[in-house]
Amino acid sequence: MDKIFRVDMSALNSTVEPVPSAWAALGGRALTSAIVAQEVPPTCHALGANNKLVFAPGMLSGTTAVNSGRLSAGAKSPLTGTIKESNAGGTAAQVLARLGVKALIIEGIPKGDGWYGLLVNKTGVRIVEEKELIGKGNFAVIEALEQRLGKTGVLTIGPAGEMKMLSANISVRDADGKLRSHGRGGLGAVMGSKRIKFIALDGADAPAVPLADPGKFTAAARTFAKAIMNHPGTGQGLPTYGTAEMVNIVNAAGGLPTRNFLHGKYEHNEKISGETLRETIIERGGNPSHGCQAGCIIKCSQVFLDKKGKYVTSGMEYETIEILGANAMIGDLDVIAEADHLMDDIGIDSIETSVAIGVAMDGGVLPFGDGQGVLRLLREELRPGTPLGRTIGSGAGNVGKLYGVTRVPVVKNQAIPAYDPRAIKGIGITYATSTMGADHTAGYAVATNLMGVGGGIVDPLKKDGQVELSRHLQIATVMLDSVGLCLFIGFPSADDPTCVPAIVDMLNARFGLELTPEWFGGLGVTTLKTERAFNQAAGFTNEHDRLPEFFREPLAPSGAVWDFTGEEIDQFWNF
Amino acid sequence: MDKIFRVDMSALNSTVEPVPSAWAALGGRALTSAIVAQEVPPTCHALGANNKLVFAPGMLSGTTAVNSGRLSAGAKSPLTGTIKESNAGGTAAQVLARLGVKALIIEGIPKGDGWYGLLVNKTGVRIVEEKELIGKGNFAVIEALEQRLGKTGVLTIGPAGEMKMLSANISVRDADGKLRSHGRGGLGAVMGSKRIKFIALDGADAPAVPLADPGKFTAAARTFAKAIMNHPGTGQGLPTYGTAEMVNIVNAAGGLPTRNFLHGKYEHNEKISGETLRETIIERGGNPSHGCQAGCIIKCSQVFLDKKGKYVTSGMEYETIEILGANAMIGDLDVIAEADHLMDDIGIDSIETSVAIGVAMDGGVLPFGDGQGVLRLLREELRPGTPLGRTIGSGAGNVGKLYGVTRVPVVKNQAIPAYDPRAIKGIGITYATSTMGADHTAGYAVATNLMGVGGGIVDPLKKDGQVELSRHLQIATVMLDSVGLCLFIGFPSADDPTCVPAIVDMLNARFGLELTPEWFGGLGVTTLKTERAFNQAAGFTNEHDRLPEFFREPLAPSGAVWDFTGEEIDQFWNF
Repeated sequence: MDKIFRVDMSALNSTVEPVPSAWAALGGRALTSAIVAQEVPPTCHALGANNKLVFAPGMLSGTTAVNSGRLSAGAKSPLTGTIKESNAGGTAAQVLARLGVKALIIEGIPKGDGWYGLLVNKTGVRIVEEKELIGKGNFAVIEALEQRLGKTGVLTIGPAGEMKMLSANISVRDADGKLRSHGRGGLGAVMGSKRIKFIALDGADAPAVPLADPGKFTAAARTFAKAIMNHPGTGQGLPTYGTAEMVNIVNAAGGLPTRNFLHGKYEHNEKISGETLRETIIERGGNPSHGCQAGCIIKCSQVFLDKKGKYVTSGMEYETIEILGANAMIGDLDVIAEADHLMDDIGIDSIETSVAIGVAMDGGVLPFGDGQGVLRLLREELRPGTPLGRTIGSGAGNVGKLYGVTRVPVVKNQAIPAYDPRAIKGIGITYATSTMGADHTAGYAVATNLMGVGGGIVDPLKKDGQVELSRHLQIATVMLDSVGLCLFIGFPSADDPTCVPAIVDMLNARFGLELTPEWFGGLGVTTLKTERAFNQAAGFTNEHDRLPEFFREPLAPSGAVWDFTGEEIDQFWNF
Repeated sequence: MDKIFRVDMSALNSTVEPVPSAWAALGGRALTSAIVAQEVPPTCHALGANNKLVFAPGMLSGTTAVNSGRLSAGAKSPLTGTIKESNAGGTAAQVLARLGVKALIIEGIPKGDGWYGLLVNKTGVRIVEEKELIGKGNFAVIEALEQRLGKTGVLTIGPAGEMKMLSANISVRDADGKLRSHGRGGLGAVMGSKRIKFIALDGADAPAVPLADPGKFTAAARTFAKAIMNHPGTGQGLPTYGTAEMVNIVNAAGGLPTRNFLHGKYEHNEKISGETLRETIIERGGNPSHGCQAGCIIKCSQVFLDKKGKYVTSGMEYETIEILGANAMIGDLDVIAEADHLMDDIGIDSIETSVAIGVAMDGGVLPFGDGQGVLRLLREELRPGTPLGRTIGSGAGNVGKLYGVTRVPVVKNQAIPAYDPRAIKGIGITYATSTMGADHTAGYAVATNLMGVGGGIVDPLKKDGQVELSRHLQIATVMLDSVGLCLFIGFPSADDPTCVPAIVDMLNARFGLELTPEWFGGLGVTTLKTERAFNQAAGFTNEHDRLPEFFREPLAPSGAVWDFTGEEIDQFWNF
């Protein structure tokens, strides 16, 4: 039987609780959001004792279903003030699921200046004092814990999380001993506020996840895997170029943020394209197609080596490449890869931080294109937490405030990633309305606006159909985030009629339920509404579902502007 | 006939316009708020081209009415995101009124990196390029302009305003060639965003303000002055000790913020009391009772000299003394006076900055009580705008965000001044509900909670009557802020039945109107509702009318907590 593991950091003890019936059919984002909405006062200080940090593996995590190993982390976000769910690959979701942990809830704040680690096994959680690893980067923590505990699942924060930087992330050990991150919304600061440096998951003698109907499960899992392999996006594009395939696609659409969102095209786009990335990796003997979790068959990640063949980073996404490459005008994959590695080690969201750097460049802190300056900023300011490092680490919105910049691409104080909403309007609706603040993964309308996923192009430059598109995608994304599936399952889900029924069949075969695709859609609707109610109780209104004023200025060279009225945006919530 | 002077900094030109009839009976805050509400889009970026900076002298400014020389400045605040009115003494209101300027409206933002000065005379506004004074402190600007233009009225920003720091203020030359400030809400950053270093007001050949009925005016003005002199607060307490008389009163009540709002009493209160301040000033040959404007008969200001008899500062208020003295635990009037001078010269709100320093101390930036550290911070970080200086200059809320502090005393991101709302609950309602963010001057319930102004004590530790008290005071304060009267006129207005009729009589005699005290009250109501509607359109809800979570923790030594529910606070707006 699955359990809730609950850790009280104020009392420094933990309990194992039965799963309340209301949460029994939930997992991933649906579960973290339900728990946060029920247990966290919406107006609390996100770094105070009343916030809670919740981890929940997806409903299919731990099974043999491919690409099902995403772990959701939830809390009130210190960056946005909204409810937050951020999910990541790596090994932790699968281990937690096999340990029978439906959710791990961490509450309270310890007295004093001590730091702690949590040791999780099938019997519960042990809280241990930690000294040796404090101040260390994520890679050192993962290495040290491997020495200490073996190849255990690990969740960890870097120096950024210890310093409670608002963009601090939570990293997850991956199968290679590297890491993946719960990137957005500053959940690493919440973990840091609870004075937890790491959570180690001992899955050594955990059983396999039980299946109510193994035969039915295997059949559905096969159909599901086939749908992924058959789709050109997940079967060809992503495995070949990774997410960096988007550089040329978005540039051609004129929506590639350049010079802190001043332009929509970058003249050196080829220097940072997916094609160049792939060539560079192959030439140096790296791996251009690599998974972020065991059981991944898309393999959009990569292993990037430097000119001498030494490992630099993996899981370098389009968004980081674009924002540093074009938006900060660095245009150099080696610098970007090094920056990506540093941000991973420091434990800071690479999207928020990269956008913050673009705003800082606009504010005169360093010149556009100064790649060495960016590396210095990360090493010498961000890592030790100098005042400038803390400024950058507090996100794009705060950098704008401290340097009087008016072109600050944030919604609900979270940075807008690497798609200009003027030229790709569907994603603009997602940025505006997402309960998470600006988040491309909350409803990835780019796929339909630019690549026709879901049965045809919705013209990216027109308003028609964008609100409906974003709504449909946001509901569907909650479903994927709750099952523990990779976001890219959205592609075959939209285009292959066998995909969603196969997911529902797997859920039924896993739990012995009779769920329908309609129930599945209802879960998306309910969760979005739960999240929005939390935000409203925290003080958010329709007026916060707006893009910054500067998007009304024309985007060169297309001249596209953000022309949605507030009323049009608010139609999003009519469901 | 009064005119509107309008300056378009985008086009670098200006116009003189007739006063629209809707604004004819308004002045001061009622007028700046009406103009901002009508002309500024509530969701605009406060430092962008769509915000406007509006100055309006009070309705009685420029007349012989005592204490009527307050100037209102209005805009959307970059600190709070709300509408903002901040008023100051000094010479500018009286000169503007004599020039027939009902309001000076500054809009747009110039292209390029140039800086400008505005030269205002009775014919209009001339925009001139400025180079020499850029980067200079306020005192140097005032001195240089006196050399250049004679003893003109001057509005100026310091380095903080040039750098668009969110706590930057706008300073006004006073009759002694020193300065007074539009302190709160970062209006200096708005002026800086429009690239205006100073506004010089040439009142040399301006006529006297016309009076419709000089005889009636003189009689009413005499009654008014008598009411002020007869009141123990304005006739004795304030002239003797200045606002620092509050140190011992608030300490006795257990509401004196100490160690970043951790305690309500300070063991060294005598070191910073009004009594000690007076003795020190007299001993050194300073002036313990001095006015901020010509025609002031309260003279709550002072001239503070150092141990060698050299001028240090004037207009050092209780709030600055308390927050640096007890809340930052500096307990040394010489250090506080030097800090006050530095903040005036840099052009930064001394309340916001002092509270920000307390939060920074809590975040480990420097130790509590480190007076020399504070002076160094102001001189070496804030003035040149280092990253740490910009952090402090962006206000208490942002310091809290950058340093992960959970005890951050702000409402709507504006710092709570020197009265703990747990022990003085009436002022807590004002902090929570004011359209301006936390602002003690918006409805100074302290006077009734601790000193019985208005007909008897409303128990500061009980909830009974506080919402009504704050509502009454906030409405009355709008009236004073609109007439151009010093806040302390609220004391005789509340206690002496001749006072308000005398004010209304003066207004009628000035303009040839037949206003009633009821009309006067209605102006307060209308203006508050106009301001709130702006804020709501900018995204503020009842949930923003709340004090920070930490005020639910007991305040030592009394154990008082902030125990108002949201519903109770929201009763404020039932009028």
